[in-house]
Amino acid sequence: MSTEQAEEGAQPSKNALKKAAKEAEKAAKSAERKARQDAEAAARAAAEVDDAVGNYGVLPLNQSQTKTGEQRVQIESLNANSEGYSVLFRARLHTSRAQGSKMVFVVFRQRQATIQGLLQVKEGAVSRQMLKWVAGITTESIVLVRGTVARPIEEVQSASVKDAEIHINTLHVVSPVETRLPFTMDDASRPEAEYEKAEKEGIQYNKVLLETRLNNRVLDLRTQTNQAIFTVEHGVCELFRSFLNSQGFTEIHTPKLQGAATESGASVFRVQYFTGLAFLAQSPQLAKQMAIAADFEKVYEIAPVFRAEDSNTHRHMTEFMGLDLEMAFEETYDEVVDLLDSLFLNIFEGLSTRYASEIALIGRQFPAEPFMWRKKDQGGTLRLRFSEGISMLRGAGADVDDLEDLSTENERWLGRLVKEKFSTDYYILDKFPMAIRPFYTMPDPEDDRYSNSYDFFMRGEEILSGAQRIHDAPLLESEMIKKGIDPASMKHYLDAFRLGCPPHGGGGIGLERVVMLFLKLNNIRRAALFPRDPKRLVP
Amino acid sequence: MSTEQAEEGAQPSKNALKKAAKEAEKAAKSAERKARQDAEAAARAAAEVDDAVGNYGVLPLNQSQTKTGEQRVQIESLNANSEGYSVLFRARLHTSRAQGSKMVFVVFRQRQATIQGLLQVKEGAVSRQMLKWVAGITTESIVLVRGTVARPIEEVQSASVKDAEIHINTLHVVSPVETRLPFTMDDASRPEAEYEKAEKEGIQYNKVLLETRLNNRVLDLRTQTNQAIFTVEHGVCELFRSFLNSQGFTEIHTPKLQGAATESGASVFRVQYFTGLAFLAQSPQLAKQMAIAADFEKVYEIAPVFRAEDSNTHRHMTEFMGLDLEMAFEETYDEVVDLLDSLFLNIFEGLSTRYASEIALIGRQFPAEPFMWRKKDQGGTLRLRFSEGISMLRGAGADVDDLEDLSTENERWLGRLVKEKFSTDYYILDKFPMAIRPFYTMPDPEDDRYSNSYDFFMRGEEILSGAQRIHDAPLLESEMIKKGIDPASMKHYLDAFRLGCPPHGGGGIGLERVVMLFLKLNNIRRAALFPRDPKRLVP
Repeated sequence: MSTEQAEEGAQPSKNALKKAAKEAEKAAKSAERKARQDAEAAARAAAEVDDAVGNYGVLPLNQSQTKTGEQRVQIESLNANSEGYSVLFRARLHTSRAQGSKMVFVVFRQRQATIQGLLQVKEGAVSRQMLKWVAGITTESIVLVRGTVARPIEEVQSASVKDAEIHINTLHVVSPVETRLPFTMDDASRPEAEYEKAEKEGIQYNKVLLETRLNNRVLDLRTQTNQAIFTVEHGVCELFRSFLNSQGFTEIHTPKLQGAATESGASVFRVQYFTGLAFLAQSPQLAKQMAIAADFEKVYEIAPVFRAEDSNTHRHMTEFMGLDLEMAFEETYDEVVDLLDSLFLNIFEGLSTRYASEIALIGRQFPAEPFMWRKKDQGGTLRLRFSEGISMLRGAGADVDDLEDLSTENERWLGRLVKEKFSTDYYILDKFPMAIRPFYTMPDPEDDRYSNSYDFFMRGEEILSGAQRIHDAPLLESEMIKKGIDPASMKHYLDAFRLGCPPHGGGGIGLERVVMLFLKLNNIRRAALFPRDPKRLVP
Repeated sequence: MSTEQAEEGAQPSKNALKKAAKEAEKAAKSAERKARQDAEAAARAAAEVDDAVGNYGVLPLNQSQTKTGEQRVQIESLNANSEGYSVLFRARLHTSRAQGSKMVFVVFRQRQATIQGLLQVKEGAVSRQMLKWVAGITTESIVLVRGTVARPIEEVQSASVKDAEIHINTLHVVSPVETRLPFTMDDASRPEAEYEKAEKEGIQYNKVLLETRLNNRVLDLRTQTNQAIFTVEHGVCELFRSFLNSQGFTEIHTPKLQGAATESGASVFRVQYFTGLAFLAQSPQLAKQMAIAADFEKVYEIAPVFRAEDSNTHRHMTEFMGLDLEMAFEETYDEVVDLLDSLFLNIFEGLSTRYASEIALIGRQFPAEPFMWRKKDQGGTLRLRFSEGISMLRGAGADVDDLEDLSTENERWLGRLVKEKFSTDYYILDKFPMAIRPFYTMPDPEDDRYSNSYDFFMRGEEILSGAQRIHDAPLLESEMIKKGIDPASMKHYLDAFRLGCPPHGGGGIGLERVVMLFLKLNNIRRAALFPRDPKRLVP
């Protein structure tokens, strides 16, 4: 019975057959009509002289053969007041969308700015051929556009310029995309939260993994978010230098090729140097101290540092930018800590005021609580002793040793405790135990288990490490021996102090860490143009 | 007879004997008197309570144990108007010279500034012991001085502060010199011409060879000349960046560790990278072009570049600072050349105005005709075509090929011809032959034996090399193949152009060359803090 029923069920009913026949007939008629229309259109197009020739097409390769001197505009400078202006600009074709057969909407992009463009068939100016051709351009191609600025009927949601659009007159391709895009700009620009929301709603977005981004970094860097991130990074360097210049510092450049593996031989890259061997500097520490012994008084350097550590974490790279400084001081290393603190406050203030629009733009993809720091009227920057930090952690239940270094987990835990108690994402931990600091660290005069050294933290992660350094050759030598370093291997460095050297101190800041933590990007690779880690040497 | 006479002549006369006896008696009396005086002085000193104790001595090692907050002054800020002020400062003991037993003249130094100090025995304040102790301090020790500013009787010739001197009240050693100085500051600061003059006059100076200086670079860097050289170098970087920032450039940081030996594999350093191999970037060329393909539009970088060339010349180092920039342009690469030219003019102007005192100071040791360039009202910067340069050299009798590169000698020869004819130390040579430029150089659209590339020259030596680059992937690929480069080995670079890239160009400037040639230092090592060449990896 069930079989019969099944068989009957498999047989079409008479009514169904009739319906199908009717639909087939209808479809055939429709297809016929469509074919006729298409043929007519093709015939018309063929018969038609394309009066838009010259208004579109691929430009010949630019070998600097033509110079008109005509001014080209920046998208971001356009607004409702530009209405009626005829403009010429080069931009990426960000998106395009045909509406019917007579109109194409496009969005043009220049770095962080986008504007809507509109191409409409218009006799004697914009042909159907032109419209079709424009609609077919691969997104991310570079185009040269001539158009008239108009006020859009309503605010443009999909572009950064909201109160103006471009009515396109001519559009040429300057540089075409000649490959399949590995991902779209939209997919690459979506915040994490949107994926989660979409998943719940059953929408499927293409999620672009960090690995995919980094493998196709040139494309990835074009997102408005990334353009903004590297503008902020530029800002950090600029604020670092302008502050230190105002304080009488001299910029120096110290060699990255070293004759000996110093500091800590384990994590240094070896270089074949003609018939011999060289080592990549893992910091400018020794050279910048030698610059102090050479009377430069206050020096800074922004340069790559190299770490041959096989650390595959969110905050380690094998090559990163060190913002380093070193200064002679008069009485105590508080002078150095005060200067470093002023430097950071200057950077935070500068970023918050000068780069507010970039920070807001980045925040759309990487939402973050605004970075908090204590202003002067809130008691100024928090400075804790290492021992106080240990007490806070113990008070919260952590099992920590007095003289051991903080683990990454405990660093973050302490960051959270500090934030709860003092409402700051930025603080200083001073007087680290001597045993966990490098040999050149000056011991605390009151308790030689501790030292005159400090770390600075942002959102619970270390972003600066520094200290008063030993400027006395005999003490330096004995500290080297204590740490198992052969003083003979560091002769030139030691000699610098035998020639007389003022008391001094300094610190080294990780540029990408500052950017990552200020913007809460969660992975340091997002703050490096072309990051390097143990597994990545390209692109 | 002559013998007799001679013998008689050898015999003292009676009168002479009497005279000698008298003088001996006198000398004996004088010696006795002196001995008695010395003994008395010693007895007095021994008996005397040293009422200057506390006013001199070696300070305990600074471990930041004491904070008074007392202001310390900069020597260079003192002048006749400071008369009567009580001041405290830290400085190098530059020279010291005892005058009799009651006075010591010293010169104190802070970087480029020096001031004369005077220590006189004064009851209850400055004891003989103090005087003797101060006179015995090794020069180059770091001292802390308290004194009163006075007007000197006449202008002080031996110090940079001419209208003020310090009457010393207290003087303590902060950091002693614990080794024999390999050379004195005076010897290290003498101009070449002075040696030649001295030699003619039979005076023997210790000439400090470059090799000796570089082996003892920390000491060498302390000369006022070197302090000024690196202040100028700081200035070049600052002027470079501030100009480019004003033009909307973004500072970038590109990795020095590369996965493949690109550009020209021959001169690249190999790095052991965990279990694999990496290479040190010999320029940021590929990365900065990729930044243009990634929409950054205008980028610059100041970073070390590495060249594994076994060149032991006055102008080659294995590691030097590259001032690199790259920019998209709209119509022709003239936009890039114009910007680079404005950049150099901005640097020249800035150096001449802001660093005039440094340039004058350096000129005392390294005399140079002032650097000349053509101002706008003199027709602006000279731009010659490579072919015009060849014609000029031929006209002067040089045997040169149309399409071969200029030798160093011919470069300099052309520099002299240009200077004679156009009165400039700075000019641009454009349209270099295609064959002698890198594969990424855009061919000249009119004559493909030439290219859209240029060099900039200072005092007849190349200081910038640049070009319009090929932004079209197929053309780039075919140029690679022509030059014997496997396109597969540069996949990531090529892909950047397949994703669409605007027409662009740029250049790379050698920082130390600019400093060397502007100041006419004659050896590039003088413009590097710790230079690296095939034979030098220390200090």
